[in-house]
Amino acid sequence: MAFPWPEVGTALADVMTPMPVIDEDRLAANIARAQAYMNQHGLAFRPHIKTHKIPAVARAQMAAGAVGINCQKLSEAEAFAEAGFEDILITFNLLGLERLSRLRALKDRVARLTVVADSAVTVDGLAAVPGLAVMVECDTGGGRCGVQTPEEALALAERIVAAGLRFQGLLTYPAVGGAERVEEFLRATISLLTARGIDCPVRSNGGSPDLWRAHLVPSATEHRAGTYVYNDRSMVRAGECGPDDLAMHILATVVSRPTPTRAVLDAGSKALTSDLLGFSDFGEILGLPGARIVSLSEEHGVVDLSACEGPLPAVGDRVRIIPNHTCVVSNLFDRMVFHRNGLVSLVEEVAARGTVW
Amino acid sequence: MAFPWPEVGTALADVMTPMPVIDEDRLAANIARAQAYMNQHGLAFRPHIKTHKIPAVARAQMAAGAVGINCQKLSEAEAFAEAGFEDILITFNLLGLERLSRLRALKDRVARLTVVADSAVTVDGLAAVPGLAVMVECDTGGGRCGVQTPEEALALAERIVAAGLRFQGLLTYPAVGGAERVEEFLRATISLLTARGIDCPVRSNGGSPDLWRAHLVPSATEHRAGTYVYNDRSMVRAGECGPDDLAMHILATVVSRPTPTRAVLDAGSKALTSDLLGFSDFGEILGLPGARIVSLSEEHGVVDLSACEGPLPAVGDRVRIIPNHTCVVSNLFDRMVFHRNGLVSLVEEVAARGTVW
Repeated sequence: MAFPWPEVGTALADVMTPMPVIDEDRLAANIARAQAYMNQHGLAFRPHIKTHKIPAVARAQMAAGAVGINCQKLSEAEAFAEAGFEDILITFNLLGLERLSRLRALKDRVARLTVVADSAVTVDGLAAVPGLAVMVECDTGGGRCGVQTPEEALALAERIVAAGLRFQGLLTYPAVGGAERVEEFLRATISLLTARGIDCPVRSNGGSPDLWRAHLVPSATEHRAGTYVYNDRSMVRAGECGPDDLAMHILATVVSRPTPTRAVLDAGSKALTSDLLGFSDFGEILGLPGARIVSLSEEHGVVDLSACEGPLPAVGDRVRIIPNHTCVVSNLFDRMVFHRNGLVSLVEEVAARGTVW
Repeated sequence: MAFPWPEVGTALADVMTPMPVIDEDRLAANIARAQAYMNQHGLAFRPHIKTHKIPAVARAQMAAGAVGINCQKLSEAEAFAEAGFEDILITFNLLGLERLSRLRALKDRVARLTVVADSAVTVDGLAAVPGLAVMVECDTGGGRCGVQTPEEALALAERIVAAGLRFQGLLTYPAVGGAERVEEFLRATISLLTARGIDCPVRSNGGSPDLWRAHLVPSATEHRAGTYVYNDRSMVRAGECGPDDLAMHILATVVSRPTPTRAVLDAGSKALTSDLLGFSDFGEILGLPGARIVSLSEEHGVVDLSACEGPLPAVGDRVRIIPNHTCVVSNLFDRMVFHRNGLVSLVEEVAARGTVW
């Protein structure tokens, strides 16, 4: 299906809606600011490409000084290997013959490939890729994957070594603001590893919400973050960025004004996603204080205007929305439109869209 | 990005995860049952293709007796016109020069093309496509788009006629179970139209949750529904189908068992979507009563097993999930995998994925 993507030079006001658009200057500033912070604190920085899924953006992150990239799924890593990336960390337990065979092929293409494991089953499978660099994922409060104790981390590191793999270190994705707990877990584990003579070169911490507190985990050598590159409404709420750091907005059009207090947008869950991230509405409409996007169907967003003061939008008016969560928006569009000075400056394929395998 | 889609004949147990899969027999039964009901009640049936976005499925719906298809966005209609469909209704207010120009081109390709309007602004724009068939969208409790009163509907019908367009009738997408209100609105509007000598050939009602009550709206001539074709967890809860009518499941794999009561799946919001539809969890895992998918990140689903009895899944075990909402899942995958007797029987491109324009 060939859609009429906007040409470079098109005014934003003429871009069809609904459309996410990226401010190139803000994007560049976000990349530079995060890298400068990491440099200042002597931390390696490894951007998570899930937020943008675009090689050109990852290249800008690498050019700024990133040590490599972070992918979440094997197919995401395959897409970035195809684009020439040579240092890739996949933060996912890779299981099964089909995946391990693809992983072997990927290792031959990528100079520095690292994966994670949090169980003996995963490590035993990875043994099919001799010499692969493997980190032990640790659960330091995030409540997702990861070993639960330093003792478990040690046991898994020993199993990695015994399996003919290369133990690369420890990795965590903490609950927001969990610096002390992360530091405690890392330090205790390093101590156990040292006692057994196992080197632990990389200690990788993560998260955009924790980005500006990364220096509070002295045992970490590396930080990973994704959302910081575009930022979103949840990051503003968390105090991690200001409104001027928001690089992504969703352009939308009012297509119906059925009642004095209701507007309907052409942006629904296929443009904004249903991610609430703790908000009670599906994004913030700029310049329309009090308006709330109260419900989404796939192609419509229903806006409650009853708390608005001032002029209300009419049918055909365009609005600009701050999305709750940018990463999930990237996954819905085949291409991403960038702009500078009010004009479309670049239209890039979202190369790793749909990579769930 | 070329993914290793399964070949026809692959056992479901060997299909990579996460993957939505469609049971062809259940799909055929769902199509036949809905069409038989409509035939029995003398209602024209117009399936909404948003649920599957696949021409081959729409062809099966047409072969069963559907009068045409329903699309939600112009680009969705363009994809189905390209696939040869000749009777298309677009239930969206189409606005703006670019869209109207595409609409003109589409009208030249499609034998019977109909759109809707709920405002004078929309009708005045549509006048750029002379002779186009236009229905008035009515809000009979759905709280989305639509004129609010029969008087408004009449005024808009008159404006449609005056604009050189063809007034095709009335359309509504009601709140669940609102048969009486729909009937009242339609009857009152038809009466006003008749008094002005305006013919109202089509009265189109809609919704899968209202499908089996469509006969309770005697003024309707047509019904539209999408979800019925795959069904989902929300349809079971509403009593509109049974577990044996669920044609879509999501195959997933347990990739981590970090604690005795926590499992983590390789299916996150990029496979299941964040649509809750009133549920407090993100899908139902078959054969694991008490398990709850309590949170999703993009690539992980965290399962709380604390209320489970019986054997718990281990790392590497595969599960089958009933999604809360099927339509949104279709939009996340480039292709859809169908199966019969436990084997992959068909892999079809989701031709209208990502069609938000």
